[in-house]
Amino acid sequence: MTPWESTYQQVCRELQEVQLLQTTQALLEWDQQTYLPQQGGAYRAEQVSFLAGEVHRRKSDPRLREKLQNLAHAPEFGSVSFEQQASVRELSRTIEKASRLPQRLVEELARACSLGQQVWVEARRAKKFGDFAPALERIVRLKREQATAYGMGGLAYDALLDDYEPGARSAEIAAMFAALVAELVPLLGEVKASKHHPDVSLLHRNFPKLAQEQLGRQAAQAIGFDFQRGRLDVTHHPFCTELGPHDCRILTRYDEQFFSTAFFGTLHEAGHGMYEQGLRSEYYGLPPGQYCSLGLHESQSRLWENLVGRSRGFWEHFWPEAVRLFPAALGASALEDFWRAINYSAPSLIRVEADEATYNLHIALRFELESALISGDLTVAELPAAWSDKYHAYLGLRPADDAEGALQDVHWSAGLFGYFPTYTLGTLYASQLFDAAERELGALESHFQRGQFQPLLEWLRRNVHRHGQTLTASEIVTRASHQPISQAPLLAHLRTKLRRVYRLEG
Amino acid sequence: MTPWESTYQQVCRELQEVQLLQTTQALLEWDQQTYLPQQGGAYRAEQVSFLAGEVHRRKSDPRLREKLQNLAHAPEFGSVSFEQQASVRELSRTIEKASRLPQRLVEELARACSLGQQVWVEARRAKKFGDFAPALERIVRLKREQATAYGMGGLAYDALLDDYEPGARSAEIAAMFAALVAELVPLLGEVKASKHHPDVSLLHRNFPKLAQEQLGRQAAQAIGFDFQRGRLDVTHHPFCTELGPHDCRILTRYDEQFFSTAFFGTLHEAGHGMYEQGLRSEYYGLPPGQYCSLGLHESQSRLWENLVGRSRGFWEHFWPEAVRLFPAALGASALEDFWRAINYSAPSLIRVEADEATYNLHIALRFELESALISGDLTVAELPAAWSDKYHAYLGLRPADDAEGALQDVHWSAGLFGYFPTYTLGTLYASQLFDAAERELGALESHFQRGQFQPLLEWLRRNVHRHGQTLTASEIVTRASHQPISQAPLLAHLRTKLRRVYRLEG
Repeated sequence: MTPWESTYQQVCRELQEVQLLQTTQALLEWDQQTYLPQQGGAYRAEQVSFLAGEVHRRKSDPRLREKLQNLAHAPEFGSVSFEQQASVRELSRTIEKASRLPQRLVEELARACSLGQQVWVEARRAKKFGDFAPALERIVRLKREQATAYGMGGLAYDALLDDYEPGARSAEIAAMFAALVAELVPLLGEVKASKHHPDVSLLHRNFPKLAQEQLGRQAAQAIGFDFQRGRLDVTHHPFCTELGPHDCRILTRYDEQFFSTAFFGTLHEAGHGMYEQGLRSEYYGLPPGQYCSLGLHESQSRLWENLVGRSRGFWEHFWPEAVRLFPAALGASALEDFWRAINYSAPSLIRVEADEATYNLHIALRFELESALISGDLTVAELPAAWSDKYHAYLGLRPADDAEGALQDVHWSAGLFGYFPTYTLGTLYASQLFDAAERELGALESHFQRGQFQPLLEWLRRNVHRHGQTLTASEIVTRASHQPISQAPLLAHLRTKLRRVYRLEG
Repeated sequence: MTPWESTYQQVCRELQEVQLLQTTQALLEWDQQTYLPQQGGAYRAEQVSFLAGEVHRRKSDPRLREKLQNLAHAPEFGSVSFEQQASVRELSRTIEKASRLPQRLVEELARACSLGQQVWVEARRAKKFGDFAPALERIVRLKREQATAYGMGGLAYDALLDDYEPGARSAEIAAMFAALVAELVPLLGEVKASKHHPDVSLLHRNFPKLAQEQLGRQAAQAIGFDFQRGRLDVTHHPFCTELGPHDCRILTRYDEQFFSTAFFGTLHEAGHGMYEQGLRSEYYGLPPGQYCSLGLHESQSRLWENLVGRSRGFWEHFWPEAVRLFPAALGASALEDFWRAINYSAPSLIRVEADEATYNLHIALRFELESALISGDLTVAELPAAWSDKYHAYLGLRPADDAEGALQDVHWSAGLFGYFPTYTLGTLYASQLFDAAERELGALESHFQRGQFQPLLEWLRRNVHRHGQTLTASEIVTRASHQPISQAPLLAHLRTKLRRVYRLEG
């Protein structure tokens, strides 16, 4: 073994130890969202904060940074493998960022976010933003401190955004939203004016929880989520977390009076899970085996939720099973009416239940609100009113209470500022990747009709998952689609579908 | 703050950090027994081993030992609080033991036991001891190494026993078993010769799982297990684990064809849980807030399972609810017959389903087998045959397969050698404590008849739980009962009950 190789192996071992701690911390957090007894919260925050501190102590060890610098500047760097070069490059970047954060700040943030989520759950239940405001103020203050500590110049918000979507900048994101909104608004106007609105009442009948769980599991398994390497549980706010190379957990929630919440939530999280399960486990804990960016992660969840799960072909396959499981609710309905109902589009108040088209407006306004919170242009106290005003401006609606207003998402309580815009980035990527897969594999709907999801999953494994962090998200999407990143595929997809659902002309 | 006080606070902080790691490790283990996906096992073993290594690195830090020595030998030691003295004394003892174990051994043991339990689950399912033997051989070898490293002189087995029951020695344990067996055997002979055997078939009717869970939860709550500070889940092998000062988790298993498995299992684990919940949380992670010994722990589970849960008064209270929940199985039965059935006594093969009297024979033979495994008098390969022979000698039965033979308990797969005898110690303590409580509180059965369990729980809180490790187990039992430790209360209790159930003369 050369000295370069030996230092490299040492760095890998250190990072794999960090990963053992990070996945253990993820289990503490998963358990907090699922099974933690009511009075266990304060101690759980101590455990999470302690582990986050241990992770940071290791990541910010100056000896680790020095080893990485030596590796990157050694003469043999040019001749080592592609994966090794990518690892050194990505690790240098993330370790450099981590090193700039004071130990105290990292531990305080972890504790504030663990407690913040607990306070948020209670405040949301009580529909009182005021109960959550002090926790959120503390978190915003700490996130600003974090952005300053990164010392990247430019906007504080951009330094946070970079944690989730490396290299992204708010100016570009704002431009992307503007371009999207400019074309969405007239399309949504046409939808509103249509005389052929689908009847969504059939989605609001009684759907017993056990049958919902059964259909969700069947669908997740059919599209390729591996339950030998993962599980599905129940929580307040659905998410996906990875606790080891063969332990990926997805969570959903059930509403017995509305079909879409759990079903499309499960497909969405399964899409995230299948990305994790498609990463190369031999590189677990190292950049070639880690997800590339949150935008790319979201492209996988959106693709399976919307482009697969809301397609007509998918339901031609699953309809008989759905009718069998929900005879009272769906037995007298026609597949075409059901399919139109799950693709209805209308302004609404809850992001996670929004349709594909208006969803992006929910994200655009959150992006504006959270940038303003971080810059200080908006205070936490002003948030509920600002939220209500933006909903009125973008969607023509006002929330009746805080639970359907500024308390609806877990993100800010968990310190996730700069995370929301990756949802819309992911939506763009998803359409562009889906179109590229279809050009190679032929009409995908005819696969879905026959219950065949494997060819699409394998295409994604080859073209997206297996790259890990060896390429950037935009490189991956560009290479896979042979086209630059653009909103055109998303807009074309929405136009085609909404024309069919709402029987529009043109 | 005096310099003594300041060093003491520092030691406490270090130990509380160790406790954060230990409880996190306990969550990894709890999750492994409940929710871990099938393929997640290998990585889980790495996580557990890593955390065990971190715990050990901290516990065996020579600076910690030095601080403790300075605290114990400082002139002011005699004038600090009772709790501080007890903390320094107990911590010195455990840190001294921990310091003697090599880092490598601790990590290897944790990994071997995490994997060992996974292999055991599969081997038990397949009923093949041979599948488990290599894992057990590795564990026995590592446990012998551990005993030698402790360097306590005497038998290797005693060094391991001391981890669970500080100060206990196998010679005394063997004498206790001899005395117990000498009186049990003639009593069991009378039982066998009785013409009035209870009809146990009523316990083997159909008891739907959901109704079992409901009754178990109700009973656990009624006797005082606090579900705001704990939970109840399902697993292969029931246990109780504590993941924080307000997060105690008990686990049980369900058999729809046998009432007693889950119900008395739940009461048993709830008894363990109530002991944890009764420890002083302001001393969490330090000796005054930690359980005293496994024998004392077991005294609490046995007390609630047998002396409360199998009493006539308890069932006078719960019978109407049991009939309501199991109308088909119990609707036509009489309370007296049910009560006699749950107190039947007969030789059997499965320890966790054994009756109160024969249970101690199951323990006696395990004690002999595990001492022989550690001393080397018995090899792992010889274990199944030796197991079968002992069951034949003590109970007149032979297991039909390994699942009901040497594979029935999780303990050895988890490295718990020296643990079994604490079950019988606990059984002795339980009767002695129960009698003492009754002398103070009056006839307890008449409390139970009225659904009153709080006075007994409060007596235990005052006389047992709140002492933590400030006294030894035998000091606690002796003080609470004003009598030396003896098998007489247990034997008197068994004699009284069996005479009534089997209508014996005398």
